[in-house]
Amino acid sequence: MVKLAPSILSADFTALLADVLEAQEAGAEYLHIDVMDGHFVPNISIGPLVVKALRPKVKMCLDAHLMIENPDLYIGDFIKAGADLVTVHAETGTHLHRTLSLIKGQGALAGIALNPATPPSAIEYILPLVDLVLLMTVNPGFGGQTFIPEVLPKIRAVKKMLEERGLAAEIQVDGGINRETAAAVVKAGATVLVAGSAVFGGRDIARSIKEIRRAAEGGEL
Amino acid sequence: MVKLAPSILSADFTALLADVLEAQEAGAEYLHIDVMDGHFVPNISIGPLVVKALRPKVKMCLDAHLMIENPDLYIGDFIKAGADLVTVHAETGTHLHRTLSLIKGQGALAGIALNPATPPSAIEYILPLVDLVLLMTVNPGFGGQTFIPEVLPKIRAVKKMLEERGLAAEIQVDGGINRETAAAVVKAGATVLVAGSAVFGGRDIARSIKEIRRAAEGGEL
Amino acid sequence: MVKLAPSILSADFTALLADVLEAQEAGAEYLHIDVMDGHFVPNISIGPLVVKALRPKVKMCLDAHLMIENPDLYIGDFIKAGADLVTVHAETGTHLHRTLSLIKGQGALAGIALNPATPPSAIEYILPLVDLVLLMTVNPGFGGQTFIPEVLPKIRAVKKMLEERGLAAEIQVDGGINRETAAAVVKAGATVLVAGSAVFGGRDIARSIKEIRRAAEGGEL
Amino acid sequence: MVKLAPSILSADFTALLADVLEAQEAGAEYLHIDVMDGHFVPNISIGPLVVKALRPKVKMCLDAHLMIENPDLYIGDFIKAGADLVTVHAETGTHLHRTLSLIKGQGALAGIALNPATPPSAIEYILPLVDLVLLMTVNPGFGGQTFIPEVLPKIRAVKKMLEERGLAAEIQVDGGINRETAAAVVKAGATVLVAGSAVFGGRDIARSIKEIRRAAEGGEL
Amino acid sequence: MVKLAPSILSADFTALLADVLEAQEAGAEYLHIDVMDGHFVPNISIGPLVVKALRPKVKMCLDAHLMIENPDLYIGDFIKAGADLVTVHAETGTHLHRTLSLIKGQGALAGIALNPATPPSAIEYILPLVDLVLLMTVNPGFGGQTFIPEVLPKIRAVKKMLEERGLAAEIQVDGGINRETAAAVVKAGATVLVAGSAVFGGRDIARSIKEIRRAAEGGEL
Amino acid sequence: MVKLAPSILSADFTALLADVLEAQEAGAEYLHIDVMDGHFVPNISIGPLVVKALRPKVKMCLDAHLMIENPDLYIGDFIKAGADLVTVHAETGTHLHRTLSLIKGQGALAGIALNPATPPSAIEYILPLVDLVLLMTVNPGFGGQTFIPEVLPKIRAVKKMLEERGLAAEIQVDGGINRETAAAVVKAGATVLVAGSAVFGGRDIARSIKEIRRAAEGGEL
Repeated sequence: MVKLAPSILSADFTALLADVLEAQEAGAEYLHIDVMDGHFVPNISIGPLVVKALRPKVKMCLDAHLMIENPDLYIGDFIKAGADLVTVHAETGTHLHRTLSLIKGQGALAGIALNPATPPSAIEYILPLVDLVLLMTVNPGFGGQTFIPEVLPKIRAVKKMLEERGLAAEIQVDGGINRETAAAVVKAGATVLVAGSAVFGGRDIARSIKEIRRAAEGGEL
Repeated sequence: MVKLAPSILSADFTALLADVLEAQEAGAEYLHIDVMDGHFVPNISIGPLVVKALRPKVKMCLDAHLMIENPDLYIGDFIKAGADLVTVHAETGTHLHRTLSLIKGQGALAGIALNPATPPSAIEYILPLVDLVLLMTVNPGFGGQTFIPEVLPKIRAVKKMLEERGLAAEIQVDGGINRETAAAVVKAGATVLVAGSAVFGGRDIARSIKEIRRAAEGGEL
Repeated sequence: MVKLAPSILSADFTALLADVLEAQEAGAEYLHIDVMDGHFVPNISIGPLVVKALRPKVKMCLDAHLMIENPDLYIGDFIKAGADLVTVHAETGTHLHRTLSLIKGQGALAGIALNPATPPSAIEYILPLVDLVLLMTVNPGFGGQTFIPEVLPKIRAVKKMLEERGLAAEIQVDGGINRETAAAVVKAGATVLVAGSAVFGGRDIARSIKEIRRAAEGGEL
Repeated sequence: MVKLAPSILSADFTALLADVLEAQEAGAEYLHIDVMDGHFVPNISIGPLVVKALRPKVKMCLDAHLMIENPDLYIGDFIKAGADLVTVHAETGTHLHRTLSLIKGQGALAGIALNPATPPSAIEYILPLVDLVLLMTVNPGFGGQTFIPEVLPKIRAVKKMLEERGLAAEIQVDGGINRETAAAVVKAGATVLVAGSAVFGGRDIARSIKEIRRAAEGGEL
Repeated sequence: MVKLAPSILSADFTALLADVLEAQEAGAEYLHIDVMDGHFVPNISIGPLVVKALRPKVKMCLDAHLMIENPDLYIGDFIKAGADLVTVHAETGTHLHRTLSLIKGQGALAGIALNPATPPSAIEYILPLVDLVLLMTVNPGFGGQTFIPEVLPKIRAVKKMLEERGLAAEIQVDGGINRETAAAVVKAGATVLVAGSAVFGGRDIARSIKEIRRAAEGGEL
Repeated sequence: MVKLAPSILSADFTALLADVLEAQEAGAEYLHIDVMDGHFVPNISIGPLVVKALRPKVKMCLDAHLMIENPDLYIGDFIKAGADLVTVHAETGTHLHRTLSLIKGQGALAGIALNPATPPSAIEYILPLVDLVLLMTVNPGFGGQTFIPEVLPKIRAVKKMLEERGLAAEIQVDGGINRETAAAVVKAGATVLVAGSAVFGGRDIARSIKEIRRAAEGGEL
């Protein structure tokens, strides 16, 4: 079954909990928390203090997507704040094996993200360590961008790499996911869908989640 | 009259507007927005999206304190998001005159901040451009730290520099300001007090604001 | 037919237009403009001001080869100055898809360059976006270096990757190209040859261009 | 007597020598060569290859103004290319004494430049080593900017520092210098005037130089 | 025959020569010198001065493993100090071909190292230049870490790449090598074994070397 | 009484303890440990492992002089390894107050170092925190350099600053200190003298120490 990860980036930051709880009520499995430092990506978003504020009030898997340089310096802060899953970018580090070990050593799930241009060979030797591979379907940094269809063959390639090694990591996609694109990514192999404006951008969060899920699972809209 | 600038860093991020409006109702003149990029300071906090979310609902002066490297790249984003005042750190740039001109050229007020160790001579030649000098009374990066009394003579020195040049910039202090320390900084020359945990850390925001203000103005607690 | 791209790096900088027009008269299709920032490569060469000066007086395709870090910050300057094609290095960025989109979104052709050591897998997922792949046949930074023959199999590999995907991007080579090496790179798949000292180093620019072209096309010298 | 340093940045880059020789004929003492790396300043201009091309054909003092990071890496290249004077920025280095010794050790004159915001105290302990202090009267990076009058007291302050130490270094100013501003900077203490668009921007280079010089020396226009 | 490279990192730094000579007497072929700059890896170890001090007193191949950023700046220092082999990390540079040429041009052997997460495709086009491929079997930075078995397939992959190209480079492994792991890496293709605490950590250096060698060659312990 | 701090940089690294103990026997109060990372200074020397090796065998004050970028990341390592005093450079940090607090918070003495070009105003507001001010009398990075006499007035200036504030910090000098220069720096106000080649460069360490001390105290040689 496909899992949904509403992206906090598109929620209402003046009253965050209300939006988040509505997504939780509607059955979203993850809360995708987009962390941007203005260096790895050209935008600054939010840090550990938001994770810490939400943690005692939210049951969903808190999924911290670190779009930051030198992630090793902040992994501990996010896990202490309450993140269940910490995803770092393959492009950010020369010591990815150490970075992933750091995450797992502190008791969280470890994810690895790839930008649209990054080939899957970049993570070939660390696949056994990861719980989730995040394939960006837009260039990270902003909400509301358009899906890049050239990433579809990469989803298939990663799915194949995991199967060949007998590994069960999730394949998450992030960027431009909505009722139109959900089916295609799931068909290619995605198992967790991040969706921002498609979930929080409209008036009825629960209904949006339901519709994306149905589209993802191949049902009629 | 002393002005108060409650720091958003200590507010409740799951329901931000409620805290912020309570501070506004209680007469706080500024809302101090602590922006941290994890590079200039060892913490990541929040970016333009929070300013943008609050802007249409808040009347206070939105005071964006950029604790970030390369502020020139983000000044426009904060002003477009609705910041009234943008403060950059003297330690972040080799082209401070350009940076301040960039802020003022886009219609915002310009502030310059000094870390506890930075001498006032660093800003001697740009004082005519600034609307506010922010003197850090803790090392920036985290809320809830203890006031550094060694900064008091620097407040006096900056006040003197402004007077000698016939300039009317505000002197803001940030860090460890509460009912105990407020009077001392105001006596030394501070005109705008940032306060985080002292405002949002307790149960009654309005009362805390009133008490800090009274203390700052030398009244009895 | 093979296209020629004389490299401005070897032209006479005290009277640039004379050399450039002679190359244009002789039928050179591109003018290769080597931009170096002293950070990505250990040399500083020229920037947008040279493109801007030449543009109104030259008809050739102005081909700006950005050997610079953070190319996103300067792409707009080069296109506004008049560049027709902007080539960035695969090694310079973690967001190559964004960088190439930035070039194309401003109406220029987009090229991607690979250093001698960089494998073609680095650009596998962005090939559909590029108009030109530039394979360095010397280590970038200086004119007058010796051709690295180990790059020949990479030319063949890129040619194959393009054919398999039904893509028509040009394959440009840069470094040590002269009458001796031209035939080998063309045979391997190169379609655009950069040549610096071999064109501008001698006395007769037109003749040099004619000879390189003849050699490239397999004719006798 | 005031000395003039026409800035190459405003000359015609398609036929550089013609402009440069016209300035030389008109009596300009220095040729100011603006080197920008796109990192220390937000523009890329020119590097050692232009100095090398001009050297055998020009008699003026070639005055290389390095607006670049890590100047130690490039000082040798500029001196080998033929620079007579190499000026580095006080803001670029933590080892300014070493940098200046490097310049002088290779037989060139050594200059130190200060951005508009940088206080003269930054160079107090290296004044005995410098042949020239360059005070920027615009923010470096581009030609054609407007003079910043707040720098006038800094010219006076540096003049006083030199006199108090019995030192004879030149005081150069750069940015927005023209017939209107020349007299003021000379009166404050400047001895060498950089001028770009005011020299090369009009039709008659010789006349422009004559007029700036006359204005600088307090004569009638 | 397998060669041994005791790692100086685990020797007694108060009396280095004694340990080193004991290893040399026991037949160790290389002395592995772990150079760390606190930037490429999170530790600072030793630099050229230690190579220079040992050189006149030691006959072993001095094998400098540069775990540093910008290795081009220090290669000359290590070779002048007496290093026979200089190994740089594939992750440190965008101009690996230049870096390796620099080493060989100064008369030393050239090695290329890969972190546990780095795929062998990163070095495919520079294999003809290298004398040694170093595959890290721990994350570099510290002695005494545990062997990462996921690297075994990479040893086999590199061995195959070398054989397919008819190249004879050594395959060195570094990290967690002891009597238990030596046989496995040699079976996979390793020809040079770095060992730190397994050699210098115990009381009898000669005996430790003999035992690791015997284990590596498949003999009984 | 003047204190002596022999610099380990000039000791014999193949048999360090012997040299160090000889200095200790001769009455040297500190052992000056020069830590260089190849980034803050153009040399790589030694790290915490040397401090750790010496600590149990040496009684002198282990004085770690961190010529490194981002000292906050390594302060803990040096103190855990056994350093009694940790000195950081004023040029390395924008948060010097935090850096010094970090040192003192872990129980070590805190020093602040100034390069030859850095003015004393850089440390004016942190003087109350420091136990030692180190004034470089050469450009840091190498042993065996020549004393820069222009630093003498800075020694006097710092002495005056300390006296005006009623502070008792040591004033250490480092670079080119020998029997000829010792008296001048002590007369200017220095209280701790680092000496490298003057101590370890000759044959008789004890005698060299005695002679420098006598010269420093104004006695006859």
